[in-house]
Amino acid sequence: MTDAHSGAAAQLDAVLAALEGGRAAALERLFELLRIPSVSTEAAHQADCARAADWLAGALGELGFEARAVPSPAHQAGGHPMVLAHDPNPPANALRVLFYGHYDVQPVDPIALWDHPPFEPKVETGADRVARIRARGAADDKGQVMTFLEALRAWKTVSGGFPVNVTVLLEGEEEAGGLSMEPFLEAHRDALKADIALICDTGLWNAETPSIAVSLRGLLGEEVIVRAADRDLHSGHFGSAARNPIQLLASILADLRAPDGSVTLPGFYDGVPETPASVRKSWDALGFSADAFLGDVGLSVPAGEADRSPLEQLWARPTAEINGIWGGYTGDGFKTVIPAEASAKLSFRLVGEQDPDAIRAAFRAHVTERLPADCTAEFKGHGASKGVTVDVERPEMKAAAAALAAEWGVAPALVGMGGSIPVVGQFKRQLGLESLLVGFGLEEDRIHSPNETYRLSSFEKGARSWARILAALAE
Amino acid sequence: MTDAHSGAAAQLDAVLAALEGGRAAALERLFELLRIPSVSTEAAHQADCARAADWLAGALGELGFEARAVPSPAHQAGGHPMVLAHDPNPPANALRVLFYGHYDVQPVDPIALWDHPPFEPKVETGADRVARIRARGAADDKGQVMTFLEALRAWKTVSGGFPVNVTVLLEGEEEAGGLSMEPFLEAHRDALKADIALICDTGLWNAETPSIAVSLRGLLGEEVIVRAADRDLHSGHFGSAARNPIQLLASILADLRAPDGSVTLPGFYDGVPETPASVRKSWDALGFSADAFLGDVGLSVPAGEADRSPLEQLWARPTAEINGIWGGYTGDGFKTVIPAEASAKLSFRLVGEQDPDAIRAAFRAHVTERLPADCTAEFKGHGASKGVTVDVERPEMKAAAAALAAEWGVAPALVGMGGSIPVVGQFKRQLGLESLLVGFGLEEDRIHSPNETYRLSSFEKGARSWARILAALAE
Repeated sequence: MTDAHSGAAAQLDAVLAALEGGRAAALERLFELLRIPSVSTEAAHQADCARAADWLAGALGELGFEARAVPSPAHQAGGHPMVLAHDPNPPANALRVLFYGHYDVQPVDPIALWDHPPFEPKVETGADRVARIRARGAADDKGQVMTFLEALRAWKTVSGGFPVNVTVLLEGEEEAGGLSMEPFLEAHRDALKADIALICDTGLWNAETPSIAVSLRGLLGEEVIVRAADRDLHSGHFGSAARNPIQLLASILADLRAPDGSVTLPGFYDGVPETPASVRKSWDALGFSADAFLGDVGLSVPAGEADRSPLEQLWARPTAEINGIWGGYTGDGFKTVIPAEASAKLSFRLVGEQDPDAIRAAFRAHVTERLPADCTAEFKGHGASKGVTVDVERPEMKAAAAALAAEWGVAPALVGMGGSIPVVGQFKRQLGLESLLVGFGLEEDRIHSPNETYRLSSFEKGARSWARILAALAE
Repeated sequence: MTDAHSGAAAQLDAVLAALEGGRAAALERLFELLRIPSVSTEAAHQADCARAADWLAGALGELGFEARAVPSPAHQAGGHPMVLAHDPNPPANALRVLFYGHYDVQPVDPIALWDHPPFEPKVETGADRVARIRARGAADDKGQVMTFLEALRAWKTVSGGFPVNVTVLLEGEEEAGGLSMEPFLEAHRDALKADIALICDTGLWNAETPSIAVSLRGLLGEEVIVRAADRDLHSGHFGSAARNPIQLLASILADLRAPDGSVTLPGFYDGVPETPASVRKSWDALGFSADAFLGDVGLSVPAGEADRSPLEQLWARPTAEINGIWGGYTGDGFKTVIPAEASAKLSFRLVGEQDPDAIRAAFRAHVTERLPADCTAEFKGHGASKGVTVDVERPEMKAAAAALAAEWGVAPALVGMGGSIPVVGQFKRQLGLESLLVGFGLEEDRIHSPNETYRLSSFEKGARSWARILAALAE
């Protein structure tokens, strides 16, 4: 053995045994983190986000890292710290990995729909005899982050260090648009040098099958406010004759989709690649059931492009979705008002070479062209990221796939991802880093919804998976 | 002279002189009423509403009425008394009139936008040298109610009684939905017998020209909740494939209007009468400027049926308006959610013989027919009232028109009303009563808004107008 990381494979059994012996303590650590209501989009939780960052920096310090909570570039505008940790004594000549996760969580509204307080975590075994951790952030992303930290802890306990050279970066603005990431990467380019990024913010293929994500859709956010009269009007005195901005906005948004489910913006499909036959074939082999997928959430009629399968729609096709709409009187009872304005929030999922800036411009033109001369629209741009494709031929990907197969007894599914993880594109573009995307969430987890859960097995086998991947990457 | 009301015309000059001599005292009486914050929709003002009712019953008692504040049918649910007053010594064989007004007022929110305390009335002469009474309720409807009571007082002073047989009904729930009116009318049918109703809750045509309202639109309210998935979904994981209920609702609502501005519901225009050429001509003579009407609220492009003038749209055409819409994430920042449901509130203004029930059914069918098989809609019906047309050929209408012409020096405009006064339909349907709608408000009055005003001339010439109308009705 010429250096510290040799022989990692020989120590793996002891590491897995350490994880087994430390299950209760690991869960208690996760609960501590889940109790911190680090909702990044709400100013009232500014201090909680800082507290979560400090807690993580402390936990990483315990593992031997030089760790600190760095004020984010968006600090003045209500941003939250980045947690940055380096191993001061890495194994010599070891592969450098940059682990990424996020400690901020989604808002809990509507709170009335929760069965229990969202920041009082507990484990509950359901009628299906599956034990689940219940709390906001259990799956997205605190539970996933802690799978990696627990794997590190077990390695530290058994061997006094880690098999590879680990840097950890934990974000506090992921659910808030992640606006700080780009300037932060720019400012810390040297400190973040690595051979590959490890990201734990994705899901299993199913409860028994791991996955590695090989493509992700990009995300573009837009908010539009359509304004008509200069004040709220009485619908009896002005109805018909005065423009109703809700009616106008409804028409504009209705026009976004053609009857066949496609998006109508001119040029929207420019740069969208056809899914290669080989990939399509591997997807077919997954046995994905559109009926079951929709049935799980109470639906039965696929809603997107009529000539694309739901799996292709989710993994390889772009979309436009309205995420929120509001205007006029929305309280109890009735008010015969024609409001002065109406608003909507939209997001576009992007694939291949679709250009977020061009699509933003096309959307704004779509709205503006439909405005009567006496109405106006105000736009607020939210984040924009291109789609990403991962190089599955890299040796790290193959090593990780083998490690996952050893843990789960079945090879990981190489999946597309309907969601967007903008940091993957930023790592690639700004740091030249490929990302290995491994995670342990499930559709059932209700992330972003009331009653979020994370299977206890996801948490525990997740930590074991990372312990194995770290060993495999050291070989 | 065979009975008391003969010779009313001969006494009119003395009555008008009494009003002239009593101006200061009349204003002080109105101020007393305006100082009572009788906001009917706020539980905190329950006792204030009762106080206003008692004050009015007392004022009517002073005029010789048998007057009382009757607990409203909605009393248990926070309702407010009806003030009911009869003349125990009416002139023999006299025309029976039922005067209606309301003593409750709109809430004052947002209070910060008021220039002065809303329940501390004062007269202020503006830069335009027009004296205005400033207070919540000055125009809607306390000032208007008091024009009639002051006319009665002058008649009482001069002749010891009234030229016609007067019953007074003052409501305390008009701004709160008026839910007590229907059961109250049913319960007091005999006490409310009359030949015609007099209602003072409308406006002048302009500051120099009185009006009589000859048509009012009816009002139908609907609320719809469109539901898709059984939970909120992540737009990355489900976007495209899963139905977005906001997109669906937007399409459904967009389809409500044709490109020419007309309402698309099948049968919607059944029972809509064409405006007679003579009426259209009288409207043309009013010199209504669509440009000025829209320009006053910052608009310039008429939005309703392209082949109808804005005045015809407002007075004689039905409409469908969306009064509120909401769904998904509407807070700060961004949330990539596909919500489980989206909602809207709509109101339909009805004219002629349009049947509210048929239109409610047509709207619900419009929605239901556009739902994919896996989506549902829930409907909540709000109030429904037909449009009302006043018979302008009745002798009382002609007498009132002549009286108004004598006071103002110009014939009253026979106007349509875009708004709805449900009590007019209730009087017609339940009591078989036609209504003479005369009022002295102006668009400038800011009723329902901060800084409500009522021209001092509206108050004083309003009382003179009613004094003349009472004389004319006695002939």
